[in-house]
Amino acid sequence: MKTAAGTEQLARLRETIDAELDRLTSGDLEAPEAIRRAVRYAVLGKGKRLRPILVMASGEALGGREEELLPAACAMEMIHAFSLVHDDLPALDDDDLRRGRATVHVEFGEAAAILAGDALLSLAFRTLAGDPGESGLASRRIAVIQTVADAVGLSGMIGGQAMDLLFEERMATGEELARIHRLKTGALITASCVAGGILAGGSAGEIETLRRYGTALGLAFQITDDILDVEGTAEQIGKSPGKDQRAGKATYPAIHGLEASRRMAARRIAEAVEAAAGLGDRATLLRTLAEIVEARRS
Amino acid sequence: MKTAAGTEQLARLRETIDAELDRLTSGDLEAPEAIRRAVRYAVLGKGKRLRPILVMASGEALGGREEELLPAACAMEMIHAFSLVHDDLPALDDDDLRRGRATVHVEFGEAAAILAGDALLSLAFRTLAGDPGESGLASRRIAVIQTVADAVGLSGMIGGQAMDLLFEERMATGEELARIHRLKTGALITASCVAGGILAGGSAGEIETLRRYGTALGLAFQITDDILDVEGTAEQIGKSPGKDQRAGKATYPAIHGLEASRRMAARRIAEAVEAAAGLGDRATLLRTLAEIVEARRS
Repeated sequence: MKTAAGTEQLARLRETIDAELDRLTSGDLEAPEAIRRAVRYAVLGKGKRLRPILVMASGEALGGREEELLPAACAMEMIHAFSLVHDDLPALDDDDLRRGRATVHVEFGEAAAILAGDALLSLAFRTLAGDPGESGLASRRIAVIQTVADAVGLSGMIGGQAMDLLFEERMATGEELARIHRLKTGALITASCVAGGILAGGSAGEIETLRRYGTALGLAFQITDDILDVEGTAEQIGKSPGKDQRAGKATYPAIHGLEASRRMAARRIAEAVEAAAGLGDRATLLRTLAEIVEARRS
Repeated sequence: MKTAAGTEQLARLRETIDAELDRLTSGDLEAPEAIRRAVRYAVLGKGKRLRPILVMASGEALGGREEELLPAACAMEMIHAFSLVHDDLPALDDDDLRRGRATVHVEFGEAAAILAGDALLSLAFRTLAGDPGESGLASRRIAVIQTVADAVGLSGMIGGQAMDLLFEERMATGEELARIHRLKTGALITASCVAGGILAGGSAGEIETLRRYGTALGLAFQITDDILDVEGTAEQIGKSPGKDQRAGKATYPAIHGLEASRRMAARRIAEAVEAAAGLGDRATLLRTLAEIVEARRS
């Protein structure tokens, strides 16, 4: 019952986020149409919108208003889309398909994919900075930009991707795998939660709790992804199952076995639920998200 | 005499900027060493440091202090370096040499070049956001981030690069060439001047004057570059002369002829000098820079 109401709220949130992403990427009419189309193709495709939803859910848990949170939510999806476009490039993971469609470089060419990724990253920071004239929230916005830029850079997502590329020849150890995930996907997921908290004007303690929540949820999400690669159906995961396994990639099940991986995910979910509980009654959506990640696992 | 003193001041500024760029790119020890080396190779190589010097000169013209301006100055150089690394990639301009050295993708591989560019762009925004805790200048910093992100994005540098790629098959017209330059190089040069003015707490009128100065200087610089491609020696321009000409690229001399191009550059220099004069006595360095661009031309 709780999850059904939560699912409806999530669907509504996704619509709000998609409409705003649409709006934010329809300007810039000076640029050639092809590159603007590539940017929109990259960011408006299907997706779970996990990161923007986490910004909204975290901010609302601390009493933040939707309109204060929405731009940052969209910025996090732009950054996620940027990272997928560049990671899919022939020189990196060389993927032709993403979410059931041709990847950006297959559809628009490599040059457009590189530039579209770059454009998404700069538009994300532009969006985080807000509109000129509204300087009231400047110090919160600056704190968010610091947090997000750290999560994107060499000690975050980009560093994680660079590290991932080192393991094309041998499988990573358990410790290395945890570190890659922490940087490559964990940092941005955690930053989404922290950004929501900062924009809502949360206390240092509340933001620390959101950081704990995000770290635990991000890891649970990643372990679950790895488990689904072994156990899931193509429909469930939106790509061919067993791909990582066949590629000899380090995954939680490959390193720790399925049973231990399930226990690790359950422990992280419990941590996330506990952190959400610490934020009180308004953190319903954060709890729902943890339940959804848990349900996905089974 | 004035220019000799100015040249000395510029050399000192370049040293300060290079030392700070070195410091700003020596952290992030969690990332693999190869990618950190690629980032430093891209940004610490030889270069005129035009954009950071413009930030410093513009800010100091309005009484800004060096330490307030230096981070933004370095951020502009990081963005410039990011754009060179990505533009040199095989899928874009496919250049093997840059400033007399192997380009980043030739030295470190394409994957590292893509990621190093991404890392430089995010580090630039991280640097513009300043240190946590210093929230006193937050609203100026937000205004700078808005200005810079606009100059980088689809209606700025990245849009200009995308537009440039359209003219591989036919030569651009004079109007198209002016538009490409305004977006591809002009936007970031102008933003450097505006950023310095904002950080120094300039009035709207002063910032508008800096915008005029930057627009004129940027265009003069670009026309001069095109003229040097025809007339210069390899030593003067740091690359083989005649390259654009042989590639059938649209340049000012190719479209307007050498004489008219010289007149256009002189007119822009005069505009820049006039704008600098409007800022009073402290704008010496801005005047020196205009003189240097002028001297370069002959």
